[in-house]
Amino acid sequence: MNDLSLPKAVSRAALSAQTINPGHKARLRSRNGEARGHTAGVAPGNVQGNLMVLPKDLASDFLLFCQRNPRPCPILAVSEPGNPMLPSLGEDVDIRYDIPRYRVYKDGVLVDEPYDIASQWRDDLVSFVLGCSFSFEQALVEAGIPLRHIEEQRTVPMYRTNIATTPAGVFHGPMVVSMRPMRPADIVRAVQVTSRFPSVHGAPVHIGMPHLIGIQDINKPDFGESITIHDDEMPVFWACGVTPQSVAMAMKPAFCLTHAPGSMLVTDLTNNSLASF
Amino acid sequence: MNDLSLPKAVSRAALSAQTINPGHKARLRSRNGEARGHTAGVAPGNVQGNLMVLPKDLASDFLLFCQRNPRPCPILAVSEPGNPMLPSLGEDVDIRYDIPRYRVYKDGVLVDEPYDIASQWRDDLVSFVLGCSFSFEQALVEAGIPLRHIEEQRTVPMYRTNIATTPAGVFHGPMVVSMRPMRPADIVRAVQVTSRFPSVHGAPVHIGMPHLIGIQDINKPDFGESITIHDDEMPVFWACGVTPQSVAMAMKPAFCLTHAPGSMLVTDLTNNSLASF
Repeated sequence: MNDLSLPKAVSRAALSAQTINPGHKARLRSRNGEARGHTAGVAPGNVQGNLMVLPKDLASDFLLFCQRNPRPCPILAVSEPGNPMLPSLGEDVDIRYDIPRYRVYKDGVLVDEPYDIASQWRDDLVSFVLGCSFSFEQALVEAGIPLRHIEEQRTVPMYRTNIATTPAGVFHGPMVVSMRPMRPADIVRAVQVTSRFPSVHGAPVHIGMPHLIGIQDINKPDFGESITIHDDEMPVFWACGVTPQSVAMAMKPAFCLTHAPGSMLVTDLTNNSLASF
Repeated sequence: MNDLSLPKAVSRAALSAQTINPGHKARLRSRNGEARGHTAGVAPGNVQGNLMVLPKDLASDFLLFCQRNPRPCPILAVSEPGNPMLPSLGEDVDIRYDIPRYRVYKDGVLVDEPYDIASQWRDDLVSFVLGCSFSFEQALVEAGIPLRHIEEQRTVPMYRTNIATTPAGVFHGPMVVSMRPMRPADIVRAVQVTSRFPSVHGAPVHIGMPHLIGIQDINKPDFGESITIHDDEMPVFWACGVTPQSVAMAMKPAFCLTHAPGSMLVTDLTNNSLASF
């Protein structure tokens, strides 16, 4: 009988520590003030999300904007007004503490970069967590497709395009895209791989021919950094999560909270669990 | 009681005629000598296949060649040696009669174009039926992607490339590709749509940049006809069923039967039934 019971050395608490989700562990480090920087490489395999917090009177327009523009604005979760918890994204997710660093905007102007937003919290705030490209990049790398900005240790280049988003209420503006150069056979594979992940931007929106989407100089991105494109490669463009941020900032909301760049919400969900087939 | 029985006017024979598969109907027209031309547009929605008949001593190498090169040589069915029936492709499929027109090759030279191959049939012959692009073209058109060669009423342009196939026994040679020009957003959609049909060539093998696969002049195809490519389009290349034919002919087999160009085996299978997801 005794052989079948747990060894005495493994306590219930130790078991629980062993099986804690790496996303939860990462969030606890943010909450305890141990993690205050970017989250790249943190809990690899777990979904990370962009944060946008808006007052309730803007939130319904923003929700509609995201619904109408799912490629740049893939919603992972929306909170109840005033409720800082996001239970669908993991255990005990409290958006006030669980991101390493935040940004506070007033009338569209950055006024603070705090490590928590407890003192900013209000009963009318709605949190939006939007998918980010880290998830599909993991799938690309696992499919054997090299990513130049990772090789060159740069931020992925991003461009404002002439592709219009579908407006909703006060929100409107052009789509921002990220660019990854690839060889043609890898482009086919990249379309297949990223098509499986519609909740984290999905398939590319454009391939080659940057001038057709209003990009004048591929070496001068509007955000991020320029990267090398070899002679046997073409630029491939994905809808970018900077789009909703740039659209929201453009209308200078009286009050708005976001994550600090690169400092994301690490969830309990795995990237693989987002695959649509 | 009588209300539940079939109306007297509908006989068993009439019911059978009503429910006959359109592919079976098309094959009976070939068998009866009523259909002697091409099969484009015949039984739309049904899978059509390329035919390659080889003596048993070559068939095992050819089967291995197809297995190693599934993109250009997607096998729909292989017969037993000497057996002209292909039951997996439809009701009563007899490969000796059910294609409108055939070609007979001796030592790699075309010697006859008969309407049946009953008098050529031998106990050592093995039939291969290979998928063709008609199937994925239906899916592309249904997805709203215009196909230029259809608009311009031309044969799709095909090119010998520098993409090597994987050799098997006596069979080796370059891949032949077909080309369809498309706008970038349609290219993404075309990769998604055709990826669902691996048994009829599947996803493109190359996008843009024809010189990278050994195509010197996109306006001078090796087979088929040249078509218009607009300024906002790129050429998209799929592995082509001409590859196994050109590879088989290159080694000048002592004896070989094929379908006549454009005169294919119409099967009972629907294109939609080939979708992999």
